[in-house]
Amino acid sequence: MQEYAFMVHRIPVGILGGSGYAGRELGRILASHPKFEVAFATAKERRGEPFAVGDRELTLLAPDDAPLKSVELVFSALPHGASELWVDRVSSNGVRAVDLSSDLRPGHTSRDVPYGLTELFRADLVDAEIIANPGCYPTAILLALLPLLEGDHIESGALVTIDAASGVSGAGNAPRPELLFAEVAENFRAYGVGNEHRHLAEMRETVGRFNRDVDLLFTPHLLPVARGILATITVPLRRMPTDLLAVWQQRYAGEPFVEVREQLPALRDVIRRNVVRITARPVAHVRRPTVIVFSAIDNLVKGAAGQAIQNANVAFGIPETTGLLG
Amino acid sequence: MQEYAFMVHRIPVGILGGSGYAGRELGRILASHPKFEVAFATAKERRGEPFAVGDRELTLLAPDDAPLKSVELVFSALPHGASELWVDRVSSNGVRAVDLSSDLRPGHTSRDVPYGLTELFRADLVDAEIIANPGCYPTAILLALLPLLEGDHIESGALVTIDAASGVSGAGNAPRPELLFAEVAENFRAYGVGNEHRHLAEMRETVGRFNRDVDLLFTPHLLPVARGILATITVPLRRMPTDLLAVWQQRYAGEPFVEVREQLPALRDVIRRNVVRITARPVAHVRRPTVIVFSAIDNLVKGAAGQAIQNANVAFGIPETTGLLG
Amino acid sequence: MQEYAFMVHRIPVGILGGSGYAGRELGRILASHPKFEVAFATAKERRGEPFAVGDRELTLLAPDDAPLKSVELVFSALPHGASELWVDRVSSNGVRAVDLSSDLRPGHTSRDVPYGLTELFRADLVDAEIIANPGCYPTAILLALLPLLEGDHIESGALVTIDAASGVSGAGNAPRPELLFAEVAENFRAYGVGNEHRHLAEMRETVGRFNRDVDLLFTPHLLPVARGILATITVPLRRMPTDLLAVWQQRYAGEPFVEVREQLPALRDVIRRNVVRITARPVAHVRRPTVIVFSAIDNLVKGAAGQAIQNANVAFGIPETTGLLG
Amino acid sequence: MQEYAFMVHRIPVGILGGSGYAGRELGRILASHPKFEVAFATAKERRGEPFAVGDRELTLLAPDDAPLKSVELVFSALPHGASELWVDRVSSNGVRAVDLSSDLRPGHTSRDVPYGLTELFRADLVDAEIIANPGCYPTAILLALLPLLEGDHIESGALVTIDAASGVSGAGNAPRPELLFAEVAENFRAYGVGNEHRHLAEMRETVGRFNRDVDLLFTPHLLPVARGILATITVPLRRMPTDLLAVWQQRYAGEPFVEVREQLPALRDVIRRNVVRITARPVAHVRRPTVIVFSAIDNLVKGAAGQAIQNANVAFGIPETTGLLG
Repeated sequence: MQEYAFMVHRIPVGILGGSGYAGRELGRILASHPKFEVAFATAKERRGEPFAVGDRELTLLAPDDAPLKSVELVFSALPHGASELWVDRVSSNGVRAVDLSSDLRPGHTSRDVPYGLTELFRADLVDAEIIANPGCYPTAILLALLPLLEGDHIESGALVTIDAASGVSGAGNAPRPELLFAEVAENFRAYGVGNEHRHLAEMRETVGRFNRDVDLLFTPHLLPVARGILATITVPLRRMPTDLLAVWQQRYAGEPFVEVREQLPALRDVIRRNVVRITARPVAHVRRPTVIVFSAIDNLVKGAAGQAIQNANVAFGIPETTGLLG
Repeated sequence: MQEYAFMVHRIPVGILGGSGYAGRELGRILASHPKFEVAFATAKERRGEPFAVGDRELTLLAPDDAPLKSVELVFSALPHGASELWVDRVSSNGVRAVDLSSDLRPGHTSRDVPYGLTELFRADLVDAEIIANPGCYPTAILLALLPLLEGDHIESGALVTIDAASGVSGAGNAPRPELLFAEVAENFRAYGVGNEHRHLAEMRETVGRFNRDVDLLFTPHLLPVARGILATITVPLRRMPTDLLAVWQQRYAGEPFVEVREQLPALRDVIRRNVVRITARPVAHVRRPTVIVFSAIDNLVKGAAGQAIQNANVAFGIPETTGLLG
Repeated sequence: MQEYAFMVHRIPVGILGGSGYAGRELGRILASHPKFEVAFATAKERRGEPFAVGDRELTLLAPDDAPLKSVELVFSALPHGASELWVDRVSSNGVRAVDLSSDLRPGHTSRDVPYGLTELFRADLVDAEIIANPGCYPTAILLALLPLLEGDHIESGALVTIDAASGVSGAGNAPRPELLFAEVAENFRAYGVGNEHRHLAEMRETVGRFNRDVDLLFTPHLLPVARGILATITVPLRRMPTDLLAVWQQRYAGEPFVEVREQLPALRDVIRRNVVRITARPVAHVRRPTVIVFSAIDNLVKGAAGQAIQNANVAFGIPETTGLLG
Repeated sequence: MQEYAFMVHRIPVGILGGSGYAGRELGRILASHPKFEVAFATAKERRGEPFAVGDRELTLLAPDDAPLKSVELVFSALPHGASELWVDRVSSNGVRAVDLSSDLRPGHTSRDVPYGLTELFRADLVDAEIIANPGCYPTAILLALLPLLEGDHIESGALVTIDAASGVSGAGNAPRPELLFAEVAENFRAYGVGNEHRHLAEMRETVGRFNRDVDLLFTPHLLPVARGILATITVPLRRMPTDLLAVWQQRYAGEPFVEVREQLPALRDVIRRNVVRITARPVAHVRRPTVIVFSAIDNLVKGAAGQAIQNANVAFGIPETTGLLG
């Protein structure tokens, strides 16, 4: 069949942790990727169950049955703590890996692994053997802050206040009472409060590359939606730029996956798309120059599976937008 | 009938603007109020339609047909701008009024009308002829800030960052495309951004009674829930109190409708209840002493109809909790 | 304290299974019941956690620590299979019991326990020692069918097709993957299909008291809402009554908790209320006389806790509506 | 640019009625269609606003400004009643049209226009000048019934009971109070009851081509979800087939967009996909052989925009699955 002849020329990839939301999202997006083809997906407890690659159905393998050597790339969507071991096993087989867990991210390890915040560290990713894919909150927040950090716009000693809200898929699909529909629907609450959230180290470490004189205060909230993150970030500035939005527009000119817009971003603007949408507004009626930056992503796409594929594209020298538009 | 004999001894009250969410909530709550009895409700465009007082059904009257003189109290849930005229008409008939609109609130008028933030201005409300009922966001936010303001805990020149999120009933029930289910569900976005929200004047004016040296930055968001407000408030302090939560516990000791708790408040804790639930947490890993205060209310109850009834209870010398517990 | 003096005159009641949705709903409703007072609530795995009786907070006891003899009535909201033993233990202590599980309902046991479908079997409940409280689906469906059964309106040999949809609280709050928010939101599906649902025996047994010549086909569906049941019931008739709705209006005249209306019932009409709302419409453009009956309840109120209290009121000779209006 | 060179070889198409949900969905799907390229989209009241074709943004034109002659195909997503005139205008310009409104569907017109229920009338669509795209409910329901009709399985004189539920996008995006989030969320209700729904004529006419001796009873319900339809269909049979599911499996063997499965379909299985998912179960414990058929589609995809593109593919001799997989 014509289609099959085409498919055999694609690069075979594997997915570890195929039963979670990020693993399933990899299957959804890779289904229409013209250069990568999913060869296997694993899930320890759900082995034997189906794994959808678009309209195609694979069967989830036990991790130990994964034919690692048969692929050229593995995406690990294993839980934090369990992933590093597998990523190293993949790598020792001469196969590249993109790790979607936090194990190898800045602030979580002393190892020096390329950090796949693509728009910032693109050069480091070319031909990388292992890539640490960023967390969902850090992706939304760091891409919003980056132009202010690079341009040294932030007031010295400033407190950057980050209130963010995420859909429940960010918490994974292990059954926990507080994630039941009847608890989450018609509800809203903060969690991980007091600046103690697991994602903070990753953000602090990355911000610190630019400015060690900035305090981050990060407060996540749980939204009654399945997917999406919106971050509302208040930043005291040295002085207000004449053209505020131009700070982001210029930094991200030509970036295919960063949408800087006048209008406020909404989750619906970014859902199921590998983009971050950003705007910034000056704050009226306050003494010191202050900006609010809004940043929205789909936590499972630009915040996980989509960015992982974007990074894999870069690593393999494929056009970065391959399989990620539309 | 036994029940009727009891009902005739209740104080007759009227409702202006019975077709909106706040008006309907007044009907719901007053149904089980042992001292007030709803005698009429009006709605210009929906006159003739039913108005539910619990299991009892009235018929919405045209405003001009409202028998103002037959009642002792009128709740006005008319839209902002349209309410003041009616409240004055009610008052000129010798009937008391609680105005749920913003027309007579601090920051919106030069008139000196008692402001029904009950826990703060209770003494002003006794025997009041007209009471300006607070807005929903200001209720949640001012009750959270009050103990810090009264105790002069806030750092001089501080920026108080208020990120708040509200259910859609806060936007009323006039049909607007952006409030359709298919637009709001699975969505989340900010609105009224840049510190220009209508409610800000009310908060700034009230905060200014205590401290003119504080900047407020208020950013509201629209939640995919029907009702409820959660405010996440970041406040730089002069110094961190030894027992942080005690600041609120002591201020609100004995207050029946303020719940100060260790645990983070969720919308589900306060929905359909006339309470504000508050907690506070010190912020770790930042240079200056900073606190996050969380405050949750039901925007239609403590943020509107419930607090209006609480204020009416005070005005009439009825026990403040009458009809508002359980 | 004044309030306490009043409270001691109330009848003390206990709740077994206080951590589930039905148990919590009992606490919510009983908080404002003037004749019953919750003395204790139990929960095996969550003992020590708080149990809310309105604004009052009890502590969940281990079942074996429940002071059964200190109360006059026990509501059992224990799981199916575990309840009967406890109900008998309660009864052997000389204490009355209302069993919200299916253990003692028609079709589930050979024991002859009064069945608390109040509007049908009210006389059997007076002074009853044990009452089997009906299931949520059977309550909605049997009350809709009852006037047709009593009046012998249903065609001989007819297939009665019942499609019903329930909010997820009907499935309880044990954490199961398929009940997570991210699975239920934006979803809808049938379950228990093929006429094999657990509730069917209860309905078939009760219908059979009137007419053994009727087949029931019951297909439940899972709605992305927290609470509420809507049943859509198609019934072939012997002949179409001249005044169709009058069949229900006459049967339920004077019933405080049955609302027969022209308009189609919606979940929002009945949520948090101890009512069933019913309408019926003749079917146009079909050969044989056929009616569609719609019936809506709150599965946790008229379908569980509310009806349990209604039945307890009857059993104790208290006015049936006590604590259940408004 | 490489991409542009490719794009100019695509067939230019236009969209009438680009501001509604179906029009927007056409833009979403066509963005990744390799053979069609959206040249323009119109919207009378929202002209000048952006129209998204994936990541590309067009500007909505006033209908009279649409360059009809510049395209080879027009999709009309205009409202019922307004569409036929425009479709004829398109056709008189020598341009093909797929009409998503009901204007030209069976039961709605005496004109003989090819009916785009692709799996049934595929042969009629090749080279068609005008195609009447089926309604969302009829698509789900007719595809479920078709194998039973073609195989003459349905009992003579039978009443086929169809209870179906749809997400709110099926009602369009004109702002109506009953479609506001705060009315639809946590709610469920029937509408168009009594067998009078607008879609019934289309279904009755198509069923009548096979069997004039069958009564249809169709009751739609409104779900608190944005998109998706689930139909639950009860059908009395002449006799129960030995292998029930094989009736559908054999009829739809090789059909790329019909998924016959053992498992019950859920909205999440079909959302954003151009498929219908069907299963069938025999009914136990009833006298006469009876089957329940479940059928799920995305009302905006297989029920509107997706099927319209599927039909356009057929009409233009392009492989039928082009742009519709993954």
